[in-house]
Amino acid sequence: MASNKEEVKVFGMVGSPFSTRVEIALKLKGVEYKCENEKFGNLSDTLKNYNPVYKKVPVLVYNDKPISESLVILEYIDETWKQNPILPSDPYQRAMARFWSNFIDDKCMNDVRKACFTFDEKEREKSIEETKEALRFLENELKDKFFGGEDIGFVDIAAVIISFWISPIEEAFGLKLFTSEEFPKLYNWSQEFNNHPIVNEKLPPREILLTFYKGRYEEHFGSK
Amino acid sequence: MASNKEEVKVFGMVGSPFSTRVEIALKLKGVEYKCENEKFGNLSDTLKNYNPVYKKVPVLVYNDKPISESLVILEYIDETWKQNPILPSDPYQRAMARFWSNFIDDKCMNDVRKACFTFDEKEREKSIEETKEALRFLENELKDKFFGGEDIGFVDIAAVIISFWISPIEEAFGLKLFTSEEFPKLYNWSQEFNNHPIVNEKLPPREILLTFYKGRYEEHFGSK
Repeated sequence: MASNKEEVKVFGMVGSPFSTRVEIALKLKGVEYKCENEKFGNLSDTLKNYNPVYKKVPVLVYNDKPISESLVILEYIDETWKQNPILPSDPYQRAMARFWSNFIDDKCMNDVRKACFTFDEKEREKSIEETKEALRFLENELKDKFFGGEDIGFVDIAAVIISFWISPIEEAFGLKLFTSEEFPKLYNWSQEFNNHPIVNEKLPPREILLTFYKGRYEEHFGSK
Repeated sequence: MASNKEEVKVFGMVGSPFSTRVEIALKLKGVEYKCENEKFGNLSDTLKNYNPVYKKVPVLVYNDKPISESLVILEYIDETWKQNPILPSDPYQRAMARFWSNFIDDKCMNDVRKACFTFDEKEREKSIEETKEALRFLENELKDKFFGGEDIGFVDIAAVIISFWISPIEEAFGLKLFTSEEFPKLYNWSQEFNNHPIVNEKLPPREILLTFYKGRYEEHFGSK
């Protein structure tokens, strides 16, 4: 079958916050794309060939060239389709956007993971506190409606994992990490962001995430 | 004392590959800067105020604004001082440069760390193999004199940790990870890169690294 080189393809997975990031960015840009949904635990050879290093979603393919890693893909999207920029134009503001997006992946998500999967009660409490400290940095960083100002930007898209994924994770693992009392600005932002029509369209059903994370819980701790 | 806002300052540390990255990039750009050397284990309050999130070097300060995280700083440098670009102009090539630089930090360095600090012999062997697999990706990626082509680019600067740091780490921990027989292209690149006059000027004395990593070894495994 002849493939259309100009076609934009996203190899994603239903329920992956990382492929959701890519889809939100493309939608915000108004770029038409085709989504190939990979199956958890049974990735296609095409995906593995496109991302031989990490063998995971998302991969964006454009002009027959594959790009992996969601934040790298977001930068590529912003440089390739210049309408509705997601990164600011000022170099310092761009640096800050990159810093906070990396912070979400390197710090927040690691802390959440530790809070979820630590057996030792005391260690678990410590990880919960560390997660909250990390969220506090984001709470203080939020100056406007969105991290990107009046419009959705790079950090907002990166933070979808906080706006939408933390809640089912909390429910599945029996944790409280992100409450409106402790993080009022971040909580309002998450509502605003999740309800933005483009974001809302690309969010997976919460039920799928809940089932997935309950499965992870049982795998790790055994059935309740 | 009045500070000069226009002055470029690097808060670094002798022996840190991450602050060395920043210094190499500034030198390649011909940007004058002042270096404040922090002490390992005894960071200044100024540094901690500039980088409250991670409390570590490097931090670049320009126009009184601090930026942390070496790869974020490299992008900022490239966007602020446009001479001698370190990132390619093509969006796809830029994405690849970002991908491989992240790969060095997220994959290679984690693998090296595991290979160094794992007690279990079998696990250690596994980590050594994983490190070599990671280096093989870089070996295959090297198409020209430098990762950046004929000139030093973003990935080369990120990879200083491989060109110069791996050897004293290997010696201190009694490992063999990166040999000229297994990685001939990467090995030649490392020689070429380390001997580039600008790079060479910014590399710390090997003896300092060896002493530092021998200390880490003894801390972890006890004296030989």
